[in-house]
Amino acid sequence: MNESFLEKLRFNADGLIPAIIQERKNGRILMMAWMNRDSLLKTIETKRTWFWSRSRQKYWMKGESSGHIQRVEKVSFDCDGDTILIEVEQVGAACHEGYKSCFFRDISGEGEVSANDEPLVKPEVVYKDKVREARRQEKEKDGSESSAELGGSKV
Amino acid sequence: MNESFLEKLRFNADGLIPAIIQERKNGRILMMAWMNRDSLLKTIETKRTWFWSRSRQKYWMKGESSGHIQRVEKVSFDCDGDTILIEVEQVGAACHEGYKSCFFRDISGEGEVSANDEPLVKPEVVYKDKVREARRQEKEKDGSESSAELGGSKV
Repeated sequence: MNESFLEKLRFNADGLIPAIIQERKNGRILMMAWMNRDSLLKTIETKRTWFWSRSRQKYWMKGESSGHIQRVEKVSFDCDGDTILIEVEQVGAACHEGYKSCFFRDISGEGEVSANDEPLVKPEVVYKDKVREARRQEKEKDGSESSAELGGSKV
Repeated sequence: MNESFLEKLRFNADGLIPAIIQERKNGRILMMAWMNRDSLLKTIETKRTWFWSRSRQKYWMKGESSGHIQRVEKVSFDCDGDTILIEVEQVGAACHEGYKSCFFRDISGEGEVSANDEPLVKPEVVYKDKVREARRQEKEKDGSESSAELGGSKV
C-alpha cells in the first residue's frame, strides 16, 4: 500500500485521530472512535474497523466480541486532515448498549433528553460469554474492574 | 433551558467535546469541530452552530464570515457522552476550501488519494472581504499570521 496519505493527516499529541463511522446505505452515523496510524492502516488493509482504546491501551476490532463487524466501503478525510470518515456496512448493532447507533439520545431545544430509537439487540445476549466471564472474574477478585471495562467500551 | 444534560456529557481535559455536523436532508457529513460547554449551549439556544477554535482560542459561529450558516435541526450525543452529533440545514458550503463537505478526499484500498467532489464556491469570492483584510494586514505587518489563520479555520 502507498502510505504517503499519512503525511496529509494530523494525528494529535497522543498519536490519535478521531474516526466517524457512518452506515453507507442510509447515511446514519453509528459511532465515533479513535484510531492511530497502525489501526488506520489495518482498517484500510483488512476492510474491517480497528481502533485504539484509550482506556484499555490496546487495539480492538469492532465486532471481535459481538460478531457485529463493520465492512469498510469508503475512507475519507477532512480538509484539515484531522478527522477520518469511514463508511461501512454494519452487521447488527454498532453500540455496546444494543442500539444500532451510539447516538440514540437527543437533546431538545429546551434541553430535555429523550431516546430516538429502540435497542436492536440485548447486550446481555450478544455479549453473554463476555458477561459470564466478567461475572466470574468479579466473583474471584471481589472487584468490578472487568465489568467496568466491558461497560465502557464499544464492542 | 434545562442544562442537566450537561452531566451526561464528558468534556475532555481541555473542556472540549467533538461535534460531528451532518446535513439532515441527505445524511452527508459536512465537518467535525470542537465545542465547549458554552458553545454547545449557545448552539442549542440560537439554532446556529458555535464552536471553540483551539488554534485561535475564541468562539466562532459557522458562517459568520461567509454567510454559509448552519441551521440546527437536531442534536444528539453518543452512549459514552463524549461526542455530539448535530444535524443541520447547510447554507452554501461547509468547507473553507469551497467544498460542500470538508471530507472531499478519499483514500483507496491501495492508499491512493483522490477528490470525491468539485468545489461548490470559490473561497476567494466567498471570503473576499476577509482575504482583502488579511492581505492588507500582511502588507502592514510584513507577516503571514493573518493568512495562516484564515487558511487554517473552517469559516
